[in-house]
Amino acid sequence: MIPNHHYDELVSSYLFYNIDQKVSAYVKDHPDAKLYKMGIGDVTLPLADVVIKALHEGVDDQSKKATFHGYLPEVGADFLREAVQGHYKERGVDLDIGEIFVSSGASDELSHILNLFDKKNSALVMEPAYPAYVDANVMEGREIIHLPSSRDNGFLPMPTDDLKADLIYICSPNNPTGAVFNKEQLKAWVDYANAHNSVIIFDAAYECFIADPELPHSIFEIPGARTCAIEICSFSKTAGFTGTRCGYTVIGKDLEREGMNLNAMWVRNRTTRSNGVSYIIQKGAAAVFTPEGQEQIQKNIDVYRNNAKVVMAALDELGLWYCGGKNSPYIWMACPDGMDSWTFFDKLLNEAQIVGTPGEGFGDCGEGYFRFSMFGDPDDTKEAARRLVELLK
Amino acid sequence: MIPNHHYDELVSSYLFYNIDQKVSAYVKDHPDAKLYKMGIGDVTLPLADVVIKALHEGVDDQSKKATFHGYLPEVGADFLREAVQGHYKERGVDLDIGEIFVSSGASDELSHILNLFDKKNSALVMEPAYPAYVDANVMEGREIIHLPSSRDNGFLPMPTDDLKADLIYICSPNNPTGAVFNKEQLKAWVDYANAHNSVIIFDAAYECFIADPELPHSIFEIPGARTCAIEICSFSKTAGFTGTRCGYTVIGKDLEREGMNLNAMWVRNRTTRSNGVSYIIQKGAAAVFTPEGQEQIQKNIDVYRNNAKVVMAALDELGLWYCGGKNSPYIWMACPDGMDSWTFFDKLLNEAQIVGTPGEGFGDCGEGYFRFSMFGDPDDTKEAARRLVELLK
Repeated sequence: MIPNHHYDELVSSYLFYNIDQKVSAYVKDHPDAKLYKMGIGDVTLPLADVVIKALHEGVDDQSKKATFHGYLPEVGADFLREAVQGHYKERGVDLDIGEIFVSSGASDELSHILNLFDKKNSALVMEPAYPAYVDANVMEGREIIHLPSSRDNGFLPMPTDDLKADLIYICSPNNPTGAVFNKEQLKAWVDYANAHNSVIIFDAAYECFIADPELPHSIFEIPGARTCAIEICSFSKTAGFTGTRCGYTVIGKDLEREGMNLNAMWVRNRTTRSNGVSYIIQKGAAAVFTPEGQEQIQKNIDVYRNNAKVVMAALDELGLWYCGGKNSPYIWMACPDGMDSWTFFDKLLNEAQIVGTPGEGFGDCGEGYFRFSMFGDPDDTKEAARRLVELLK
Repeated sequence: MIPNHHYDELVSSYLFYNIDQKVSAYVKDHPDAKLYKMGIGDVTLPLADVVIKALHEGVDDQSKKATFHGYLPEVGADFLREAVQGHYKERGVDLDIGEIFVSSGASDELSHILNLFDKKNSALVMEPAYPAYVDANVMEGREIIHLPSSRDNGFLPMPTDDLKADLIYICSPNNPTGAVFNKEQLKAWVDYANAHNSVIIFDAAYECFIADPELPHSIFEIPGARTCAIEICSFSKTAGFTGTRCGYTVIGKDLEREGMNLNAMWVRNRTTRSNGVSYIIQKGAAAVFTPEGQEQIQKNIDVYRNNAKVVMAALDELGLWYCGGKNSPYIWMACPDGMDSWTFFDKLLNEAQIVGTPGEGFGDCGEGYFRFSMFGDPDDTKEAARRLVELLK
């Protein structure tokens, strides 16, 4: 048996390992210290009441023979697909129910979806980026095209004539920068993809944080997207499902390449390679789209948005450059005084007990920047912001 | 973008489509007919009380900030890995907790695991077989080696000197035949794999149906398995999780090929390509391994076992050849009077309103055989057995 030697090509993920090591060492030396954790993008508020109620009902259904559910459709339960369909309709996007697939979450799906594509395709990753885009493709032997972005283009790189890419990852609102493509910018990428027979993998995990009504939540708000884009969505940040696990994916029935229909291929993939997502979890996820669900998740999102306001006010007071925060749960700041991102990490940890994520971990062009996650406790966030000002003023 | 053209090589899955078409047509013509469904291997009894209780507790934990769980370890929660570890210890198999991975179910995992292997490997499938073994590998361009089995070898084919195979699928107890490898037979496969640097993918989804104390539940009961086998397990049939979704996988830390450690590769795979399984579901799954859980799931398993006894008695009365049923939830019978499996399907449906699965759907060598699933309602199973005798006597 020949193992998949592409794993040898992976760069060890020093980022989170190093953070763990440094934080553990600090805690060992300072056992009583309280840390202000703004590193990992993990939610902290409990699930919405209406979701909890639906999850309990789902469990109860599994306790009685009359309401028990065995295998569900591999592509997702109709009740959840219809709820997603209604959600898109509200924002003016008409989808056939057969274009919606329930998933076990965006990170899983970003991996599974790669089975649709030949290994010879190149994958374009706009950096700084979520490291798994690169790693999942390296594991399959695909060439990675790193497209760096910078403060000059607002961390929103645009396609150019000399660009050649088969798969194009777009994460908007972006992790880690919080930058959001507007409709014209996204249209340029859609036009590029249609002109070059590329396929866009649109990671919409953070769309619920968009506050500006002009910004697109879905790539399917852009004309032409149906023939070039796959949209991968998650309940993780929208409804606090990071530990509960559910998501959904949209593939238009008119997405075809070389005579093959990607929607039909995905149906075949799911029915062969999966037995679908837990009935209980799908019941809970469907409750997110009820009017009460939408109201309740919004309250949690607003808590995280307020966290962002608190940190943005601190950075404004300090006169430091940052982006994100307004339409995103991440704030991406320039390290002060030209510090590199690990030096700044050490300074924050040692002098203010704040844990963030060094930008270098998201690609070379992230060096000199730093990511704060806004998913923490509001009181802790206020104290962290106060400490930030005190430390850097 | 070049799509994965291996999808063009897939044979359309006529089996279940054809069954659906025939059943639908029958129901249309006979709207009041009651059908006796023994086709799909899907459980019908509700989850054990102790599992339901744990699931409710898991939901409650997600409703309060103090007990809320965000991201869990991608490889599985320690509480569930420890429960699995204890379960193996009871059957005399010592595992390190780092050798146990929680999965979203065996069918998903059978697909995900393929990422560890180069596309150039051949995959040996002992037929008749679960069709997804073949299809998942065809999708990745691997050569399939079909190893047919027959009544002559009890549907338990053994390795021969001229065999050349890199990946070896073993499903024991087998779907669809119900045949179970004994320890010596399994040892022969383990020895073959170690001698030829092959890797065995051992599908243990039906191990809980083994009644004979001499038969192995796990390939890790066989000396030498740690250096050649990956075991894929499921709560689906064991604890009725077909619609609740959870499983676990064992990869020994000493499984290496060409200098690469497959356990370490799988850790890297999971941390890159997944965010793990729902906390709620893992809570429920862990309850399966409590003493009450083991007792309660056994009651459900016994119901299905009794179904098998009822059907076996009917086949014995008819003097028809079959295997399975004793250590398996499937009974695999020879179609009477040399009938082909689709003719027998039509006869059962039209003349006795019984739905089964034609053996031809599990590979060419399944022609002339027929699979009954024992997961149905006990009263329905009794009536189906009565009709079977009446029809064929």
